[in-house]
Amino acid sequence: MLLEDRIRYRPLHDKITDAQTAAGCILDGTNLFISGFTAGYPKLIPQELVRRAKNGERFKVNLFAGASTGGSVDGILAEADLVGWRRPYMSDRIMRKKINANGINFKDDHLSRLASQVRSGDLGSPDVAIVEAVGITEKGHLIPTMSVGNTPTYVREAQKIIIEISAESPELEGIHDIFIPEDSPWRMPIPIYRTADRVGKPFIEMDPNRVVAIILSREQDSCPVFNPPDDVSTRIAAHILDFIRHEIKRDRMPRNLPWQSGVGDVANAVLSGFIEDDFFANLDIYSEVLQDSVLDLIDLGKVRAASGSAMTLSHKARKRFFNELYRYKEKTVLRPVEISNSPEVIRRLGVIAVNTAIEIDIYGHVNSTHVMGSQMMNGIGGSGDFLRNGAISFIVSPSVAKGGKISAIVPMVSHVDHSEHSVDVVVTEHGLVDTRPLTPRQVAEQIIKKCAHPDYRDMLWDYYQRAVRTTGGHEPHMLDEVFSFHQRFMATGDMHPRQK
Amino acid sequence: MLLEDRIRYRPLHDKITDAQTAAGCILDGTNLFISGFTAGYPKLIPQELVRRAKNGERFKVNLFAGASTGGSVDGILAEADLVGWRRPYMSDRIMRKKINANGINFKDDHLSRLASQVRSGDLGSPDVAIVEAVGITEKGHLIPTMSVGNTPTYVREAQKIIIEISAESPELEGIHDIFIPEDSPWRMPIPIYRTADRVGKPFIEMDPNRVVAIILSREQDSCPVFNPPDDVSTRIAAHILDFIRHEIKRDRMPRNLPWQSGVGDVANAVLSGFIEDDFFANLDIYSEVLQDSVLDLIDLGKVRAASGSAMTLSHKARKRFFNELYRYKEKTVLRPVEISNSPEVIRRLGVIAVNTAIEIDIYGHVNSTHVMGSQMMNGIGGSGDFLRNGAISFIVSPSVAKGGKISAIVPMVSHVDHSEHSVDVVVTEHGLVDTRPLTPRQVAEQIIKKCAHPDYRDMLWDYYQRAVRTTGGHEPHMLDEVFSFHQRFMATGDMHPRQK
Repeated sequence: MLLEDRIRYRPLHDKITDAQTAAGCILDGTNLFISGFTAGYPKLIPQELVRRAKNGERFKVNLFAGASTGGSVDGILAEADLVGWRRPYMSDRIMRKKINANGINFKDDHLSRLASQVRSGDLGSPDVAIVEAVGITEKGHLIPTMSVGNTPTYVREAQKIIIEISAESPELEGIHDIFIPEDSPWRMPIPIYRTADRVGKPFIEMDPNRVVAIILSREQDSCPVFNPPDDVSTRIAAHILDFIRHEIKRDRMPRNLPWQSGVGDVANAVLSGFIEDDFFANLDIYSEVLQDSVLDLIDLGKVRAASGSAMTLSHKARKRFFNELYRYKEKTVLRPVEISNSPEVIRRLGVIAVNTAIEIDIYGHVNSTHVMGSQMMNGIGGSGDFLRNGAISFIVSPSVAKGGKISAIVPMVSHVDHSEHSVDVVVTEHGLVDTRPLTPRQVAEQIIKKCAHPDYRDMLWDYYQRAVRTTGGHEPHMLDEVFSFHQRFMATGDMHPRQK
Repeated sequence: MLLEDRIRYRPLHDKITDAQTAAGCILDGTNLFISGFTAGYPKLIPQELVRRAKNGERFKVNLFAGASTGGSVDGILAEADLVGWRRPYMSDRIMRKKINANGINFKDDHLSRLASQVRSGDLGSPDVAIVEAVGITEKGHLIPTMSVGNTPTYVREAQKIIIEISAESPELEGIHDIFIPEDSPWRMPIPIYRTADRVGKPFIEMDPNRVVAIILSREQDSCPVFNPPDDVSTRIAAHILDFIRHEIKRDRMPRNLPWQSGVGDVANAVLSGFIEDDFFANLDIYSEVLQDSVLDLIDLGKVRAASGSAMTLSHKARKRFFNELYRYKEKTVLRPVEISNSPEVIRRLGVIAVNTAIEIDIYGHVNSTHVMGSQMMNGIGGSGDFLRNGAISFIVSPSVAKGGKISAIVPMVSHVDHSEHSVDVVVTEHGLVDTRPLTPRQVAEQIIKKCAHPDYRDMLWDYYQRAVRTTGGHEPHMLDEVFSFHQRFMATGDMHPRQK
């Protein structure tokens, strides 16, 4: 397909140019609002900015995306020291390092909130939007690629728009559902009543007069590699499915509430758990990022509808998806993240939310972001949107990390992203605790017995028992040794005591 | 007015009885779902239960209300050791003590979530509802008193209903707006688009066949005493109003977003701040508990609409309210707490949320519930519903407590109810920090400089600087001395070091 055929709005053909010219409007201090949510990010302009930096130009941009954009944006821009500010989420190794060294300003937001903040002007003047698209419609509107994220708002607000037409993407038109809610006090209900509902347009409305450049791209999203579910994640998935099946059978939960599952191997494994399970059928998935497991379930005829803000597929799955797009399109819908993660919609639909943690404490508080309390990992992403508003919220983690040297269950988490009030059920490969009918003390006793790794149970029990005896209270804690596990790890590289 | 005139549904006249007979169905292990949300709780049945306990009967009930019910329910039942479980919130001194001693099982829930949990059966079989009402309609429906809370759901779900007709209450009919949303996956949008919208019925639908007893009550709610705004709360209120005025003038916020203000003196003072302020007019108040200040503002013609789940008025204000009910009724609406605190509605309307904290840390995490990390104070109540979903969320506290011996700003809060991600603006009498455009390190620097009490600034700054130098990271913390302020207080009764 020719570039011209992708741009069905003729007047914009004049804007076709090269990356160097296109990026000319990006200067020191420019606020850059880019498409991208694990997928669908622009590729050529970031490369061009790096080229300029290598040629000695000194400048920094403030970078706002939907969520993470991987090595090809966050990674190379961070490495070239081109990023002043970054919001709301990232997962790149190099960028993470610079954020923790205070070399990049980073703020970690609930993903559902950013778009309205941009519209209200809170994030500064919306200078330039860079958007990856599969094409432009006859009326000059934009068809995005494999993610929506905050792109509709960025395109609406930006003074200048640069478009990277992704020549390798197939005809994704029709998969997106673009709806920008009005802002308060004029907001009306978001009219999604069922997972499959389409309430917007299949394109992003755009004022063609603000398009300053269009370039042709043959770059593709870098693909994640999903590890096949290992024993630990298979057991975690089994605990969750058993529990929900039990709740449904006891008539404490309706059948067919939609599912959300976070990003990564464990989250992928949870959905893979449905593959060999005959109880669950006609699944609705109302999630944030759709991964390989969703395609597998569609192939098995197990999915009624899958909704997200992005699709992140392994190389193999992407090929399959592109080849049989007509079939997958019927089942999938990609929305702005303020809709996929909308508290209103999540609570209305009654989403079963499954999210992963770095560590969980004995009372059910969750650290999703900071290793040892200070070092940023990736960000909370949408975990808070789903955990807080889901009909039932699971927080899951393997019981240990670093070959057993770190216990995921600790006396007190070293950083709290989600308090006990947002968490219903705690799950590790060893077991599951439904905290809803329990007092904090009962929660602690159950989590230590059922979720902690056997290596750490005695230490946790000893801590808890002494806290009950000495401090007492509703959530007994001894503040002088509440982080003893962490301190030991930082001193010795192992949460186990030297002498076991 | 005769009791009979209050019960306009004639067949229920047969159920009129005395408290002793009425309470006959309450036995050991009974799940008791009572009306009440700072006001509007039943009074006679609790007294009768205490009488039985004093006569030597040994039994415990599980007590679920809308929120707190004060000394006349929580207090006397706790003192008589009659409470097995209590949810979701309380503020009584005696009950608090027993909860902290593990003598009463207590779980602290987001108030917006409890009703749907009761409907799903999560809280056990709904044995008996006890409801204070001003009357019963011709068709046998219930008109509640000064609060709605979870009463509509309790009345719908309970197997047996006991009604205390409050003979002293005036004709409140018409002030309530009762709407129970369907539960997922059949829920539809909650159709409130503006603060004043009425979307339900002025009574609680009730099946008269489940009414087992009706008794006449001349008891009244015990009234809070509001202290007139002191210097500290006046300054806190001024900071908030100045900030919002500034945002509106800079066109970063629309005029006339509705306000929510928490419970207590400081919250009352914030709304009182409008009294002498000419900039703010036509106020919408979309809150949880309406206090004296709301009446004052109505009298001044400054309120367009005030919505809440309860009215808690001082003795004097209540008299005024009852005397001119016709006038106040036009401006006020009382809703179920799942509606007053609905994340969906709060986010749609764009509520300006103001809530108080026990302590706030340098990165903006908030402890609303646990003194020194372990001792339960009252519970989170609706603070999380409003903080998380407001268009802008203020967390406020006087900078010190206990005559300066406790700093409300600490390195790390000893318990987290609301993470930094739920908090937009931190306020003490010394100043205000808008955290939204800042990194965590910038937040820490600003909070220490602007919000901390001068006595504690150097200590906080010293901690923060050393954390930056030694641990570093995105939110620098030294886990081995992160609670040094708390530990010092617990050892010496003062967060100040011995030698200043």
